[in-house]
Amino acid sequence: MPIDQLSATFAALANPTRRAILARLVSGECSVSQLAEPFDMSMPAVSKHLRVLERAGLIARRHEAQWRHCRIDAAPLKAVAAWTERYRHIWEARLDRLDTYLQQIAKKKEGKHDRKPRRK
Amino acid sequence: MPIDQLSATFAALANPTRRAILARLVSGECSVSQLAEPFDMSMPAVSKHLRVLERAGLIARRHEAQWRHCRIDAAPLKAVAAWTERYRHIWEARLDRLDTYLQQIAKKKEGKHDRKPRRK
Repeated sequence: MPIDQLSATFAALANPTRRAILARLVSGECSVSQLAEPFDMSMPAVSKHLRVLERAGLIARRHEAQWRHCRIDAAPLKAVAAWTERYRHIWEARLDRLDTYLQQIAKKKEGKHDRKPRRK
Repeated sequence: MPIDQLSATFAALANPTRRAILARLVSGECSVSQLAEPFDMSMPAVSKHLRVLERAGLIARRHEAQWRHCRIDAAPLKAVAAWTERYRHIWEARLDRLDTYLQQIAKKKEGKHDRKPRRK
């Protein structure tokens, strides 16, 4: 079964090294060796991550003389944001419920402090 | 290496069946057999998907007599939305550039139409 675009994007993002590569590319295009620098891994391992990101359409690579440059393509992330947005009302409703609950507790505490202390 | 929470969430979402299960749970809690109904797959296959979603914290299951019920937990999706948000300026800048380009083309076309036709 051919993998759908959104599944390919999510699979590519399911790795902290690949997410760190994308974070690095936010500040602009850079070479593959610059990208590999902060990671304690071999160049083939980094290249493998770049291939996954490229296949998911999250980065584009271009060759210039002997240099390979990468840049981010955020279009698939726009699709992730749109997909996630459908669930926003659920987590916001949950936070609202939590907020109401905390307000109720605060009111109860206030009520206790307002009462005059009983004389012994 | 233990998998980080965000990677587990992305990995769980990298499958159209699992995303369809979450979409179904938006309208409320339901039983495992109700969840399995629309899918052309065995119950063990559906259960496997549910386990992945549960391990990622995207659903919670509860047993009631012989019934197993599932409900969505959107908290990990809130983290996905927050992560994706960091890249919004990139896709928006890209759309702005596209918009400017299309406006330029439209202006050029308008200019052509405004010119009086030459007599032959």
